Amino acid sequence: MAARRGLFISLEGIDGSGKSTQARLLAARLRAAGHDAVLTREPGGSPGAEEIRRLLVEGDPARWSPETEILLFTAARRDHLERTIEPALAEGRIVVSDRFADSTRVYQGTARADLRAVVDQLHRLMIGREPDLTLIIDMDPDAALARGLARKSGEDRFEDMGADFQARLAAGFRALAAAQPGRCALIDGTGTPEDVAARVWARAERTLP
Amino acid sequence: MAARRGLFISLEGIDGSGKSTQARLLAARLRAAGHDAVLTREPGGSPGAEEIRRLLVEGDPARWSPETEILLFTAARRDHLERTIEPALAEGRIVVSDRFADSTRVYQGTARADLRAVVDQLHRLMIGREPDLTLIIDMDPDAALARGLARKSGEDRFEDMGADFQARLAAGFRALAAAQPGRCALIDGTGTPEDVAARVWARAERTLP
Ligand SMILES: Nc1ncnc2c1ncn2[C@@H]1O[C@H](COP(=O)(O)OP(=O)(O)OP(=O)(O)O)[C@@H](O)[C@H]1O
Ligand SMILES: Nc1ncnc2c1ncn2[C@@H]1O[C@H](COP(=O)(O)OP(=O)(O)OP(=O)(O)O)[C@@H](O)[C@H]1O
Ligand SMILES: [Mg+2]
Ligand SMILES: [Mg+2]
Repeated sequence: MAARRGLFISLEGIDGSGKSTQARLLAARLRAAGHDAVLTREPGGSPGAEEIRRLLVEGDPARWSPETEILLFTAARRDHLERTIEPALAEGRIVVSDRFADSTRVYQGTARADLRAVVDQLHRLMIGREPDLTLIIDMDPDAALARGLARKSGEDRFEDMGADFQARLAAGFRALAAAQPGRCALIDGTGTPEDVAARVWARAERTLP
Repeated sequence: MAARRGLFISLEGIDGSGKSTQARLLAARLRAAGHDAVLTREPGGSPGAEEIRRLLVEGDPARWSPETEILLFTAARRDHLERTIEPALAEGRIVVSDRFADSTRVYQGTARADLRAVVDQLHRLMIGREPDLTLIIDMDPDAALARGLARKSGEDRFEDMGADFQARLAAGFRALAAAQPGRCALIDGTGTPEDVAARVWARAERTLP
């Protein structure tokens, strides 16, 4: 009999919506409940993908065209998948990823340019894998942008695309949740981190083995 | 009437076969003959693509899987095409590129892995453009490897894949020349740089406007 397969959960949402905070809290809660959880992130999550990340999140917003950007995200995702996600799932672990392919669908596929067909073909050709569960943190774009920029991380290339861009992102994530209700769940991102974490946990628990 | 379109010439061949030497000599000869020639190279040829280049040509041979490598080369090529090649062709210039898409077809599509179908689909989806003329410098792989490694450039990731790999590359380039005789010409790479340059020029001249 094949070993039990793990579980793959992604966190999605606009910049500053609280994905990294919630991914961390979810992984901690899974571990506290006795699960073997791996916390990872995109772009990045493997040594090679982290190097590609620097090309993507720093510098001028016009640094890459939408098409080049899609290729770089897909390269980073392929490395992350091969070297971090698939090995962990094969060992039966629970992978919690701060962003995955839905970010490319929404950022490059709809908000930055109208390239959803290209994003989808590239995903089918080079990635293939979908999370078992995607938790989309829903938040007012202006409030999220203010949170995100307050951090001054030096990784503000997408924040620098402006408030209109963030509003298109928020709409894109809502449309995605509506289109794929089986895999995706919209989580209300207002309130304290603990408030949001309670909503995340309530939804994740239903999918746990 | 639309402006006259430029001409796109690529130089291809295994590591150390003399592509960079011949691309430089060809661009100089074109300029001496009064043409407006742009000398460029892959991976690289635009500021963004040169940054991606460092991820590709340095470090451990196993640093990237063949699939991730294809995506990174395609990202670099897309940037190079948008920011250097297409603008120059639109101005009616002659672009001489030290490598282009055939390198990916042969290196990642046949020599490193059997991924030619993936390489071709990705090319159709994200690149599209072919050179008007591709000059493939044909050389004994052992002799070329000795030349290339003697340089100690610090960019030896592909040279480090070994002599068998170089032999598969040489066979791949010959097969490509046979399959696309209209666009590709095999150039004998033996003799002095000037000997080879005379053969390159004889073939290139037939395609000049
Ligand atoms: N519920 C919350 N209430 C107030 N502040 C929060 C909340 N959740 C996160 N924050 C803070 O908001 C900022 C953005 O949160 P976080 O980094 O988790 O968002 P993110 O979605 O990962 O952002 P990015 O897309 O930029 O990576 C951080 O400074 C974080 O501490
Ligand atoms: N015809 C020749 N005879 C002898 N040496 C040559 C000849 N052509 C080039 N060389 C030398 O061989 C080395 C490799 O040449 P070159 O850099 O042009 O090859 P290349 O195909 O561009 O290699 P790479 O694939 O590594 O970029 C250089 O040191 C160059 O000076
Ligand atoms: Mg984050
Ligand atoms: Mg060279």
